[in-house]
Amino acid sequence: MDNLRKSDEWLDRGGPDNNVVMSSRARYARNLPRIPFPMRARHEELKEVLDRVQRAIRNNPRFASPLSFSLTEIKSVERNYLKENHLISTEMEKGGENRMIILTDDIKLAVMINEEDHLRLFALDTGFQLCEVFNQAAALESELGRELGFAFSPKYGYLTACPTNTGTGLRASVMLHLPGLSYIKQISEIVKSMPQLGLTVRGFHGENSENQGDFFQISNEVTLGKSEEQIIDLLSRVIEQILDKEKQARRMLFEKNRAFIEDELWRAYGLLAHARLMTSHEALQLLSKLRLGIDRGYFGSFSHSDLNKLIIEVQPGHLQYSGGGTAKAEARDRLRADVLRKRLEIDVSRN
Amino acid sequence: MDNLRKSDEWLDRGGPDNNVVMSSRARYARNLPRIPFPMRARHEELKEVLDRVQRAIRNNPRFASPLSFSLTEIKSVERNYLKENHLISTEMEKGGENRMIILTDDIKLAVMINEEDHLRLFALDTGFQLCEVFNQAAALESELGRELGFAFSPKYGYLTACPTNTGTGLRASVMLHLPGLSYIKQISEIVKSMPQLGLTVRGFHGENSENQGDFFQISNEVTLGKSEEQIIDLLSRVIEQILDKEKQARRMLFEKNRAFIEDELWRAYGLLAHARLMTSHEALQLLSKLRLGIDRGYFGSFSHSDLNKLIIEVQPGHLQYSGGGTAKAEARDRLRADVLRKRLEIDVSRN
Repeated sequence: MDNLRKSDEWLDRGGPDNNVVMSSRARYARNLPRIPFPMRARHEELKEVLDRVQRAIRNNPRFASPLSFSLTEIKSVERNYLKENHLISTEMEKGGENRMIILTDDIKLAVMINEEDHLRLFALDTGFQLCEVFNQAAALESELGRELGFAFSPKYGYLTACPTNTGTGLRASVMLHLPGLSYIKQISEIVKSMPQLGLTVRGFHGENSENQGDFFQISNEVTLGKSEEQIIDLLSRVIEQILDKEKQARRMLFEKNRAFIEDELWRAYGLLAHARLMTSHEALQLLSKLRLGIDRGYFGSFSHSDLNKLIIEVQPGHLQYSGGGTAKAEARDRLRADVLRKRLEIDVSRN
Repeated sequence: MDNLRKSDEWLDRGGPDNNVVMSSRARYARNLPRIPFPMRARHEELKEVLDRVQRAIRNNPRFASPLSFSLTEIKSVERNYLKENHLISTEMEKGGENRMIILTDDIKLAVMINEEDHLRLFALDTGFQLCEVFNQAAALESELGRELGFAFSPKYGYLTACPTNTGTGLRASVMLHLPGLSYIKQISEIVKSMPQLGLTVRGFHGENSENQGDFFQISNEVTLGKSEEQIIDLLSRVIEQILDKEKQARRMLFEKNRAFIEDELWRAYGLLAHARLMTSHEALQLLSKLRLGIDRGYFGSFSHSDLNKLIIEVQPGHLQYSGGGTAKAEARDRLRADVLRKRLEIDVSRN
């Protein structure tokens, strides 16, 4: 298996409440002192950042067998692939000089170098594991901080390229799958209530992406004026509440509207398992319904993890990478339908 | 098998061009002299008509082992069943006094008694067999005419309750399946051109039914002032032209838009084979696509005849009759989906 495909591996781990929480992550924005932020840094300065951070990571035992990608060297389709795996940001996907992402062998910890900040270090895992990923990221941050001495102001906290990250520089987020709340039309109310709690809602593909397939990413908006523990604590409590509401909505749906919802699930399955052309948008919407069904024991032995992987596998970059690089939309829609049909050859006929 | 189910049998015969022409029929409207038309006839007069026509039929060797239904005696769901089999008219479905339909054992010839006219005798068969059904109906008409002496005026021809039937009293019709012309958007042009040829277009369920699933019934409008041969000849020529156009449209569709049309066919299959609730309207639309696919060798060993039968089998009356008489729409939609799933367990996976 090539390194790029290895980077898929984090997607199919289980994790608590993974019927609703796809994944949890915590990241820190950090910078080296006395070197301009990447956007304003000269070639040699970016090179120096890259060298110093790489050295610090080499010395860190967590990165014993690291997986690393130089965004400068890999192709556009490969950058897109990493973006779809939620491992690099839209900013890093552009490529550019002296940019790199380094991941631990188990793909639970990662450092992006020379993104908007010199370092974006993060921990990620599947399911509802906000405290765990926070602890992991915090431990790595303190280890790398001892070695690199991050830029810090007693007044503002950690200095960052964008003021919204200044302070703790911590952003924690979870990707939620909320088809139940969506079906009972409570989703927009929840989305609307997030800003007043200092939280932000985004779509499946992160910043500026629309809400496709009932996937919602929720993260803290502000990092200044709050302790790291406060941030994690608030987000955890909010997610727990949404989790309860979603579970209740699903119960209600299957109790009171069983015929309707079963029909919805099986229609989604029927289209996924038989269509010959499918857009990325439609696939995500239908797979979202399948994911809801899996939670209730439909669709045989297919698991949430299988589905998480399948959702990523049919993204344009993944198809383009597997299919030998064709970039034409119709060819991709056909390839996507082929992949879906093959993966859905599961024994479901007796449900 | 009960007699009602036996009346399905005519639907699964083959016949020329049955990929486009579902069925052909020819019927005569006839009345006995000196007895008012059924709408104005008294009880005893209707009874007399029934007795005399029954006697004439008993003496006719074509009706050696007849299948007969007294519309007065059978239940509403059974009348609906016969209507869905295209064996009785909407008028006869109402029930009423001294009304009967008598069919030959092979369900190729039938006489409705005390419909709008005293007799509506008709021949029917699957595929494009307009001349054959005309010859059959004409032979029966002349045999029964010798025995009963139909009401006739030298000036107007055969007298009928509705002036549109006066003259020959002959109406010939074919049920066409035109998904190709529908896909390439030529259907409305063809429909519009029919009246100027003296032809009428109706939907799947005959008079006043909308065009569902690309099924169109075409028949002659006027029966006065034209010979029977002229009527059959004109209709045959028009149907032949439409047949050619439809075949050409299908070829074009599969040559130039293969990916699109295959996707359409398989999506229809996916929904039919997996949905848990389905309305009659949607079923007809999806089965129409399956029928197009069968013509091109998709969907395994499933035949046009199988599909003709399935289309009828999922009509409300048929479901109600099979399912023990439930009349609730949701229960019927569920039963319909169950029947479809069961019937579509065909080996299609390797197409």
